[in-house]
Amino acid sequence: MNATNHQFRLAARPVGMPKQSDWKYTEESVREPADGEILVKIIYISLDPAMRGWINEGRSYVPPVGIGEVMRAGGAGRVIESKNDKFAVGDHVAGAFGLQEYALSNGSGVSKVDTRIAPLPVYLSTLGMPGMTAYFGLLDIGQPKPGETVVVSAAAGAVGSVVGQIAKIKECRVVGIAGGPQKCQYVVNDLGFDAAIDYKQEDVSTALRKHCPKGIDVYFDNVGGDILDAALAQLNRGARIPLCGAISQYNNPEKMQGPKNYLSLLINRATMKGFIVFDFADRYPEAASQMAGWLIGGKLKSREDIVEGLQTFPDTFLKLFKGENFGKLLLRVADE
Amino acid sequence: MNATNHQFRLAARPVGMPKQSDWKYTEESVREPADGEILVKIIYISLDPAMRGWINEGRSYVPPVGIGEVMRAGGAGRVIESKNDKFAVGDHVAGAFGLQEYALSNGSGVSKVDTRIAPLPVYLSTLGMPGMTAYFGLLDIGQPKPGETVVVSAAAGAVGSVVGQIAKIKECRVVGIAGGPQKCQYVVNDLGFDAAIDYKQEDVSTALRKHCPKGIDVYFDNVGGDILDAALAQLNRGARIPLCGAISQYNNPEKMQGPKNYLSLLINRATMKGFIVFDFADRYPEAASQMAGWLIGGKLKSREDIVEGLQTFPDTFLKLFKGENFGKLLLRVADE
Repeated sequence: MNATNHQFRLAARPVGMPKQSDWKYTEESVREPADGEILVKIIYISLDPAMRGWINEGRSYVPPVGIGEVMRAGGAGRVIESKNDKFAVGDHVAGAFGLQEYALSNGSGVSKVDTRIAPLPVYLSTLGMPGMTAYFGLLDIGQPKPGETVVVSAAAGAVGSVVGQIAKIKECRVVGIAGGPQKCQYVVNDLGFDAAIDYKQEDVSTALRKHCPKGIDVYFDNVGGDILDAALAQLNRGARIPLCGAISQYNNPEKMQGPKNYLSLLINRATMKGFIVFDFADRYPEAASQMAGWLIGGKLKSREDIVEGLQTFPDTFLKLFKGENFGKLLLRVADE
Repeated sequence: MNATNHQFRLAARPVGMPKQSDWKYTEESVREPADGEILVKIIYISLDPAMRGWINEGRSYVPPVGIGEVMRAGGAGRVIESKNDKFAVGDHVAGAFGLQEYALSNGSGVSKVDTRIAPLPVYLSTLGMPGMTAYFGLLDIGQPKPGETVVVSAAAGAVGSVVGQIAKIKECRVVGIAGGPQKCQYVVNDLGFDAAIDYKQEDVSTALRKHCPKGIDVYFDNVGGDILDAALAQLNRGARIPLCGAISQYNNPEKMQGPKNYLSLLINRATMKGFIVFDFADRYPEAASQMAGWLIGGKLKSREDIVEGLQTFPDTFLKLFKGENFGKLLLRVADE
């Protein structure tokens, strides 16, 4: 094994939208795995909004990526060398492999995945972190009941699309908010949402009133900003807001926009609760098994937006913040 | 009975801070109680921040006070005529009697109070709505555990002072935020808080870091605005924010300030939950009995700021928003 590994490392902490110069593209030789280690050839790399938070300085739920370090990212690939009894050469695996072509790992946090159940990209999507986020955020934090109205933002995204589909399985009325007619048609026609709101074309408050005639019981928030405010204004008594993200605000550090309608929580005895999917790690198997069943049964559809080439990363990553991806955004960095 | 009743009625919906011209002082004869009714001579009227919300137009947890209606307010007084078997002349009672000298009532929502247990004003304070708000907001929503750190804003106020004292009873570290050295000394020296922060003199973020070395587990919010943001920034994992009010924002309708640090809820898996004390009405007896025990046992102190004269209402009410009251603000409108 004499391969060369290419990587993206963090060169500087971005201010606002990350620039090319915030990253450094590097190469190094791949060393042999030590005892207990595996060498993974990475095939797909997951690009997630949360990554924007990981490169900010300061206190968060995980330590920030250090300057000069390989950028943290989830990935899926194939074991090509193994000195760990739990993994064999040829196994497909998923884990936090970083933004690179090869990863060495002692196996901690790495899971074997079965490509007979679902294609490899799905393990970074509906059966991966975004799917787990949707599952626990909706069911544990949102606690939807049959007949209730669930609204989800970034509805065509990796998390939102699964939130809406699970809410339909739980017999809720489901309204998605997404950008552009194509995404709106997708969530209604392909995923079975009851309605979709195109925030680029429509007044979200007016559209929410129209599509949520009984008010909002669960608002699953991925975006923050004006859309969060519009949803807050139409909460029902006892409503729940699982706080999953705020993609509209991540590149806006100086002028962070707080929800000016937050007192709707008071008036409506409502709850806004943050969660981090990693806290549910011991229940991933439960969720994965349930979700795999739904996938196989056709109740859950997964869509990936796959971009070729590690080197495209700095530009491809920005698609998330421009709303240009359609489905779970992945980089393909090697052939399957 | 040929008494004349004086009243404050809502003349206009205030924009910002209520003005004299938003109120109309009226008089009318007191009619005889009908069958089932009582006539109450009101002695104390409760002035509460929540009243500012009741005179805004639009959807809230109670219908707004109508233009021309007697202003809604809690009060305590004495039954002076009774055609209701449940009440006798001479009984002391508390209820939503309005901003006036006399009230007719069918007895619904009116409770008899025992002035041998506590003086009449205390039934509008620690044993009244503010006390119930503190009790249920802290214990049911905040769920403090021994050894945790509880921070409360408007700490010398009717609700905040009780929140802090109950948190001490529950063996928490308690930090109060109040305006001015007198209030800060009061909550530490008289009420037994562990520390107080004078938001008019100190940088609240710096002071919170100093006085909450282990972070904040419960932040009971009465004020909103910058103080809410400062508290959000120092939450512990799993922290709870009972959302009780936002007095800094009530007269600021155009430029409502949302909490820009709300994503701390996400990072820390924290919960912000609104509540309305009226929802706990069926448990008031439980709380009142517990609180009366603490009062009698000297574990709970009650302080009232009593202003003489119904006619002072428009000015006296504003003391709440200027932070000028020290203890539960009451109007005394008749001799006991």
